[in-house]
Amino acid sequence: MAPAGYGNRVEGLHAVAAAVAAGRVERLTVERKRRSREEIARLIDAVGEARTQLVDDTRTIAETEAPQGVVADCTPILPVELDSLATETASVLVLDHLEDPQNVGAIARSALAGGCSGLVMSGRRSAPLSAAAFKAAAGALERLPVAVVGSIPEALQRLKAHGVWAVGLDAGGDQSLFGLALLTEPVAIVIGAEGEGLSHLTAKRCDVLAAIPMTADTESLNASVSAALAIFEIMRART
Amino acid sequence: MAPAGYGNRVEGLHAVAAAVAAGRVERLTVERKRRSREEIARLIDAVGEARTQLVDDTRTIAETEAPQGVVADCTPILPVELDSLATETASVLVLDHLEDPQNVGAIARSALAGGCSGLVMSGRRSAPLSAAAFKAAAGALERLPVAVVGSIPEALQRLKAHGVWAVGLDAGGDQSLFGLALLTEPVAIVIGAEGEGLSHLTAKRCDVLAAIPMTADTESLNASVSAALAIFEIMRART
Repeated sequence: MAPAGYGNRVEGLHAVAAAVAAGRVERLTVERKRRSREEIARLIDAVGEARTQLVDDTRTIAETEAPQGVVADCTPILPVELDSLATETASVLVLDHLEDPQNVGAIARSALAGGCSGLVMSGRRSAPLSAAAFKAAAGALERLPVAVVGSIPEALQRLKAHGVWAVGLDAGGDQSLFGLALLTEPVAIVIGAEGEGLSHLTAKRCDVLAAIPMTADTESLNASVSAALAIFEIMRART
Repeated sequence: MAPAGYGNRVEGLHAVAAAVAAGRVERLTVERKRRSREEIARLIDAVGEARTQLVDDTRTIAETEAPQGVVADCTPILPVELDSLATETASVLVLDHLEDPQNVGAIARSALAGGCSGLVMSGRRSAPLSAAAFKAAAGALERLPVAVVGSIPEALQRLKAHGVWAVGLDAGGDQSLFGLALLTEPVAIVIGAEGEGLSHLTAKRCDVLAAIPMTADTESLNASVSAALAIFEIMRART
């Protein structure tokens, strides 16, 4: 199947500004009473009056809770091929069926800031790359390559065939994420779903299961926090 | 003024279970069709039928979007005195007017998992410790001490008088957070508001402004991600 694009709908000031900068906005919808605000006036200038419409309240048409007076309908972004992420300097985040679009967006934001090469996510059962994900990503999803795959375990198999190691984050992992030598190699960090963690088959396909050391053993971390700690651990290992 | 308590309202399975475990739940409201689910039946057992009421849809009374069929009205938690956090092993997170309760909750969750001694936040203009914060904290706000202060700059002054160093996280900081020697000392990490960062006066009161190294210099990190990186950097420095 040819994967469909994503990012058709973008909401909120920062995310819409990034979509405008990427030249993707086909129609901009602005809340009438906010049209003169500097940040919004600049967006209208960039998109053009002909492609801008005014409404009384963007919240009535928005998918997110706080669209901040701007909603954009966009040309979709096309996913990249998985193989294009399997480079010699790969640092890829693989999302094993995350369900919270805010987590997906926050991970994209940290991944871009931390210099990761891309995201891999499943086309099924996963948090879609919705307006909420784009809002949380604060522009990062405009620039970070994303591969959408049918099966996460198969994607890991394929990355490994290209020489990319798979490191699963798992509270029960037998190695510490901090100081993990493998992070200087081409690597894919696999993040499990909120609550459930890594699926059984995904965990089996990982070369290493790494834990984040915690002081209180009944505690857990948010998926986007775990991902960020891994992203910056890779940066630290490589510099 | 005597600071008011917080955490009167808790929603969502994980957060309500933690409030029940803390013995704080005065009235439990459960969605009728979910009352037999194992996790929810266990909560009803713990709280008692007399203090449980059934409703058709918890979403109509909830403050958060997805209360998962359980809403609890609770005895409030009392804030701690600021001075009680100024110990010889202090690792305190100071929130400089964060506005997103999800960020506040996520920071509490990371702080407890990473062994921090407490949170300091302002009683004015800050994200309240609302049901949304408790949900994102996944139980951590039941156990992590929180001091509520009138002024963040004054609180930093007072912590410093007790020998606690103030490290502000700031993208323009002249030192790197990673490897910062000061983190082995009693320390308060100051997190700025989403978008605006540290206020001018707060930044002036910090002993050090530390930056998180990023590869793409136009990028920024979510406040809860920055906080988590600092929390685990302290853990690393001290072990």
